[in-house]
Amino acid sequence: MAVYTDVLEGDLAAFLSRYDVGRLLSYKGIAEGVENSNFLVRTEGGTFILTLYEKRVDRADLPFFIGLLEHLAARGLSCPLPVQPRDGRTLGELAGRPAALFTFLEGMWTRRPAADHCRDVGRALADLHAKSADFAMSRANALSVAGWRPLFRGCGAEADKVSDGLNAEIAAELAHLEANWPSDLPRGVIHADLFPDNVFFLRGELSGLIDFYFACNDILVYDLAICLCAWCFELDGAFNVTKGRAMIEGYDGARPLSDAELAALPLLARGASLRFLLTRLYDWIHIPDTSFVTKKDPREYLRKNRFHRGVASVADYGFQKRGAAA
Amino acid sequence: MAVYTDVLEGDLAAFLSRYDVGRLLSYKGIAEGVENSNFLVRTEGGTFILTLYEKRVDRADLPFFIGLLEHLAARGLSCPLPVQPRDGRTLGELAGRPAALFTFLEGMWTRRPAADHCRDVGRALADLHAKSADFAMSRANALSVAGWRPLFRGCGAEADKVSDGLNAEIAAELAHLEANWPSDLPRGVIHADLFPDNVFFLRGELSGLIDFYFACNDILVYDLAICLCAWCFELDGAFNVTKGRAMIEGYDGARPLSDAELAALPLLARGASLRFLLTRLYDWIHIPDTSFVTKKDPREYLRKNRFHRGVASVADYGFQKRGAAA
Repeated sequence: MAVYTDVLEGDLAAFLSRYDVGRLLSYKGIAEGVENSNFLVRTEGGTFILTLYEKRVDRADLPFFIGLLEHLAARGLSCPLPVQPRDGRTLGELAGRPAALFTFLEGMWTRRPAADHCRDVGRALADLHAKSADFAMSRANALSVAGWRPLFRGCGAEADKVSDGLNAEIAAELAHLEANWPSDLPRGVIHADLFPDNVFFLRGELSGLIDFYFACNDILVYDLAICLCAWCFELDGAFNVTKGRAMIEGYDGARPLSDAELAALPLLARGASLRFLLTRLYDWIHIPDTSFVTKKDPREYLRKNRFHRGVASVADYGFQKRGAAA
Repeated sequence: MAVYTDVLEGDLAAFLSRYDVGRLLSYKGIAEGVENSNFLVRTEGGTFILTLYEKRVDRADLPFFIGLLEHLAARGLSCPLPVQPRDGRTLGELAGRPAALFTFLEGMWTRRPAADHCRDVGRALADLHAKSADFAMSRANALSVAGWRPLFRGCGAEADKVSDGLNAEIAAELAHLEANWPSDLPRGVIHADLFPDNVFFLRGELSGLIDFYFACNDILVYDLAICLCAWCFELDGAFNVTKGRAMIEGYDGARPLSDAELAALPLLARGASLRFLLTRLYDWIHIPDTSFVTKKDPREYLRKNRFHRGVASVADYGFQKRGAAA
């Protein structure tokens, strides 16, 4: 939940006066997004989401995020569309923060993903990759393989307090990934954080994607590896091959995966699980217990990483390329 | 901010199926109310507020709260109206909590009340008192004078850690209030918590009152005393007589105050400020710092209590009854 900054009515009315949305009727802080403050705003012209960008988001990245959403929405991908003010400056300022107004997406994220959800997510991810292919801007992924060692170093020796022997286990895994990380796979804009709370469904169909604030340029299929980690494990820690198969099939049906991409997927999934293990571990160690932020257990991603280390090929995810030998 | 309980989409859809509101489109936890979890729910039939009653609210009180809102709305007071399900049971259950669906009120609470807001609030409070006069149910005020000593006792000797000498100061004030609390003033249903965040304004006019979960039967003008404390002090701690006058005039214009009520107002305001001092002090001492609840500084109400102790008559609040001698 996240409303870090409150907004005065008069300031919001002044902010909205740049838009053709009619007069302000109400606004309420909502529990959505962890990096920014979000408000549901109702005006005579409709319902919108107002986002105030907090400190954790680099202002220099905002044109990339705003531009990407405009680019994707123009190509028919269902995502929050920055509303155009009369002066054309979609990025404004409110309560001392950069701020933007977005269209409101109906739909709900699913707390209990099933295989059909995973198939839809795979398909939507491939669609996102296809539609962002001609997006002109780029943004480096600070949380890709090159960023993990500094993050690990920042955890110091504290890792062993979270789980016995964790320090050595991460060190070995990190060394393996750094030595073997692929450099020749297709790259493009990835979402990089497509967890269940960032995907809306309505009447059984995927209705939209939100929260593009980790989007960046990286290996496309790494995005699929992240989704395998985020969607296809059960609460008891077991990987669900039915979901894994559905997700990879969904992706492959919309953007066919090459043999090289499929072969790399287990290693990329090791990387994806290590990335979330490291960020959670870092937060676990550095965020004081008195903070409002709910800290997520890093060990969930240690278990996922261990699973992916044991995967020999995408067959272990339940996937088999059509026409390939069993 | 408050979303203590998350809700599964399927459970919410089942809950809503009892209502004629069409299919569920979206729902978002909102930062409103401190006792309960609230969601803004959009369906094909409109926009609603869903409230899940958390532990701090006694289930036995819910029929009073729901009934009061129905009673007031039927008499034209703008407040959340419980939506009627087909089976007539406005109080349902969701995610293991009692839950109810309410109409959505447009409007915004004012972060910076001016004298005109105070006048409108006084008028709306008198209107609430008039319209609840024939409400058949009643609910005792656990936080009126008889409830303060147990609350104070619950704070133990910790008060002095908050402010030097606070323990003795409260003891003396409490003894004075217990000895002099009036017993012959008009009583009825009061809101008992009409702070700025519970009053909505739209286009410069008061558009609605919310959060009736402290409503109870008590001395009517005690409600006005609470509002004087909640609305008429500046951030620097000074009482603003222009606001005080506007609020009392607003109330008196809609429900004329008797001489006895006016004479009692300074004592009732001492009581109101002590009540919020004590509840804040209790929370300050008992709620762990690691909690999600933002603790409010009790000393704000110590200062307000001291101010009211120095008040000789309502003239010190800026008010003079029409026709009365100066």
